[in-house]
Amino acid sequence: MLAKLPHISPSAKESSMPSSEDPSSGTTQLDDRPWEEMLRLAQEGTHVQLEEYVSHLSTTDQALALSRLDEEQEMQVLEAMNAADAAELISHLPEIEAARMLALLDSTTAAAIVHELPSDEQADLLGDLSDDQAEAILEELPQDEAEAARELSAYEDDEAGGMMVREMLRFNDQMLVRDVIQDLSEHGEDYSDIDVRYAYVCDAEDRLVGVLPMQNLLFVKRAEQLSDLMIRDPLSVQATASLDDLIELFDTHNYLAVPVVDELGKLQGIVHREAVQYEETRAAESDYLKSQGIVGGEELRTMPLWLRARRRLSWLSINVFLNIGAAAVIAYFQDTLQAVIALAVFLPIISDMSGCSGNQAVAVSMRELSLGLVRPTEMLRVWWQEVSVGLINGSALGILVAIVAVLFDGNPYLGIVVGIALFANTIVAVSIGGVVPLVLKRFGFDPAVASGPLLTTVTDMCGFFFVLGLATAMLSKLI
Amino acid sequence: MLAKLPHISPSAKESSMPSSEDPSSGTTQLDDRPWEEMLRLAQEGTHVQLEEYVSHLSTTDQALALSRLDEEQEMQVLEAMNAADAAELISHLPEIEAARMLALLDSTTAAAIVHELPSDEQADLLGDLSDDQAEAILEELPQDEAEAARELSAYEDDEAGGMMVREMLRFNDQMLVRDVIQDLSEHGEDYSDIDVRYAYVCDAEDRLVGVLPMQNLLFVKRAEQLSDLMIRDPLSVQATASLDDLIELFDTHNYLAVPVVDELGKLQGIVHREAVQYEETRAAESDYLKSQGIVGGEELRTMPLWLRARRRLSWLSINVFLNIGAAAVIAYFQDTLQAVIALAVFLPIISDMSGCSGNQAVAVSMRELSLGLVRPTEMLRVWWQEVSVGLINGSALGILVAIVAVLFDGNPYLGIVVGIALFANTIVAVSIGGVVPLVLKRFGFDPAVASGPLLTTVTDMCGFFFVLGLATAMLSKLI
Repeated sequence: MLAKLPHISPSAKESSMPSSEDPSSGTTQLDDRPWEEMLRLAQEGTHVQLEEYVSHLSTTDQALALSRLDEEQEMQVLEAMNAADAAELISHLPEIEAARMLALLDSTTAAAIVHELPSDEQADLLGDLSDDQAEAILEELPQDEAEAARELSAYEDDEAGGMMVREMLRFNDQMLVRDVIQDLSEHGEDYSDIDVRYAYVCDAEDRLVGVLPMQNLLFVKRAEQLSDLMIRDPLSVQATASLDDLIELFDTHNYLAVPVVDELGKLQGIVHREAVQYEETRAAESDYLKSQGIVGGEELRTMPLWLRARRRLSWLSINVFLNIGAAAVIAYFQDTLQAVIALAVFLPIISDMSGCSGNQAVAVSMRELSLGLVRPTEMLRVWWQEVSVGLINGSALGILVAIVAVLFDGNPYLGIVVGIALFANTIVAVSIGGVVPLVLKRFGFDPAVASGPLLTTVTDMCGFFFVLGLATAMLSKLI
Repeated sequence: MLAKLPHISPSAKESSMPSSEDPSSGTTQLDDRPWEEMLRLAQEGTHVQLEEYVSHLSTTDQALALSRLDEEQEMQVLEAMNAADAAELISHLPEIEAARMLALLDSTTAAAIVHELPSDEQADLLGDLSDDQAEAILEELPQDEAEAARELSAYEDDEAGGMMVREMLRFNDQMLVRDVIQDLSEHGEDYSDIDVRYAYVCDAEDRLVGVLPMQNLLFVKRAEQLSDLMIRDPLSVQATASLDDLIELFDTHNYLAVPVVDELGKLQGIVHREAVQYEETRAAESDYLKSQGIVGGEELRTMPLWLRARRRLSWLSINVFLNIGAAAVIAYFQDTLQAVIALAVFLPIISDMSGCSGNQAVAVSMRELSLGLVRPTEMLRVWWQEVSVGLINGSALGILVAIVAVLFDGNPYLGIVVGIALFANTIVAVSIGGVVPLVLKRFGFDPAVASGPLLTTVTDMCGFFFVLGLATAMLSKLI
């Protein structure tokens, strides 16, 4: 009985691992090229040997190994495993990789694997496939499972509906403790993949009326009714609750999961704290990728070359036009530049340094927005806080570059021009960098994507204008 | 009895909230400037009113409100609350803010608040204080608690010792089920803040010998001994296990917590899955901040101006010298530039666009490293995968800029020079961007901090060299 209980029983996989105090020691002794052994076993061995080998690999080595096989080889490996083990394997892959592999399989095999996944992962993966591919798989699934997956995949990954699972303990409020214990004993096997720490209690109309922590059953008589034991009026969310709502909820409440209900209060599923934290990490990673110009979705180097090139290029080509706009300022002042060629040496310094200062301000604004320490409407406040830093750092950088300019050229006026320009442009850069994420957020744009290019373009234009405008005004001193 | 059980009982705070299906609805109706009401209640109201008001604010509003008070006002608020509520409040703040506030309080008040925090948060906060401040607080704590906190704060935040808590259920393996149930009934109050889903079972020498899922006690006789019920040889980690080890462990095993043991196998504490996910999110956020030049630790705009300016400047001043190095290439070719001034218009475009392409490659490498899809030794593999993208995107961007140059200047050779230069430099940029994070990681540096500046400097130097070197070679055609 004990070994059947979920979440803590050492599964076949775990008990066959060397009992070790160092969780990484199991992996370091393994073959350096696990994909070769994986493929060999798929081609020559039994499925038991293959599954045994895969279960000994760490999850990162599993992902690494699959990523080194070509499509045909991946199929050989997946088809050589039973569906449950194949599901375990692909659930450790980046979502986009898992979806790609499902798409390669025939729909019967794919459906058998999808069938073994928890409902939230089913929905995420099906959502990543084309409509035709998803439909072909759904048709092979049991009807109620297919219906549930269709519903769930209608939600975004980062709203409650997209994070929720349907697998949970749910009991009627009229049941007795002994009924529950009997149910658990009878269905131990069915419950082995779900979270049995709480049971959700519904009335005859499926409306959520209470939550029952299972360990409480230790302390009560078996003839008591759930409606007398449960915690009434539990907190719940709608399927459309946003990631921010859920982060806030789990931050405020020490819950492990929150139930999801529809407009009538009927229980739809539960969202685990873990699922919310997973999406939160994904959001942080996605902000980083976007800020570096990977904006079309996740890129892995195993993806097709033309897709990778095209996605990156779509971002680069916007930037090239913004850059040409900034360069137009230089073109306008060509005569000044021709007369004082030393200025050309300093233009890229002004441009890069202002970009650096501005990016720092962007990062702090993004961080404060995500911590809730600043509201998108508080632009004036942020602007002033940035200007004060800009005055200090602009002075320091301006003086530094001015000294370099004088040493380089010997003309003190060149130092004055580039020093003042960098000072002024640092203030412009931190102002824009600090305020732009707030403005973008306020008007519903994604600040992680758009802040960088906007910042660079404006600071380049201003920077070139300051240097060359000042130089034109002081041209007689510079020649 | 039921209401005393941890983790699920609606606390005073939760039960007094409007029972709502939308978790954010409680906050939107509140005062727009919660810090004013908070301060008013601290100055005029009772501590009960203040605590009631604070408990109704969302955690982000709590953090926002405190961040808008000056230091004296913050003290008034914290001192007006009882220690447990003050601890709850500061535990929702960014760690660096919480530590700053503790440092302001006298050590007796600070110790009373620290006393109410779980042991891992105690250690994190004390680690952020100066040695003197931490020592003063430790002296006010009960001796065993102080000793535990001293030990824990010796660990880094991102190793098992720094994430572990000492609060857990631990029982001797000779105890009977009935002893455990009696212990739970007697100590319900003491256990109200700890996780009672598992008990950890030790032998007479405090060595961990088993883990016991508490709900299993539902199915067994009260006269059975724990040693017969527990899961033997549980997985455990050393206190020095890294964040990566723990991520891997929780990824592979569906556990909620893992026990930490010393070299002798004695139980030290447990690390919750949540704590690991929290640190994982922090690491992703920190990578983003570092990539944008916020490298001296977290910056919030409530921090002192000079600290913020100095930290940012330390990063900027390294960059300015790197930039001057790149500008030296331009200086070297001044004569060519003077002869063909139109080149000066295109230098910043080449520099910026190469930076953009290189940053994309950096981001993909960082992502693949964190997913384990590439090993730090596989530089050649990554290089080739980047060169292939660089050939495509370099051609596209090169042709685009070449057309712009011809339209601008009318001389086809100018187009050839800037086009070829951007093509070649795009390949350089993606090569360096892809490979540099692997090299840095392999040699133990933080790729998030150093990749950007290294990339920018090398691509700027190469880019300027390509444009001006080519132009010098073709000077007769350009004039």
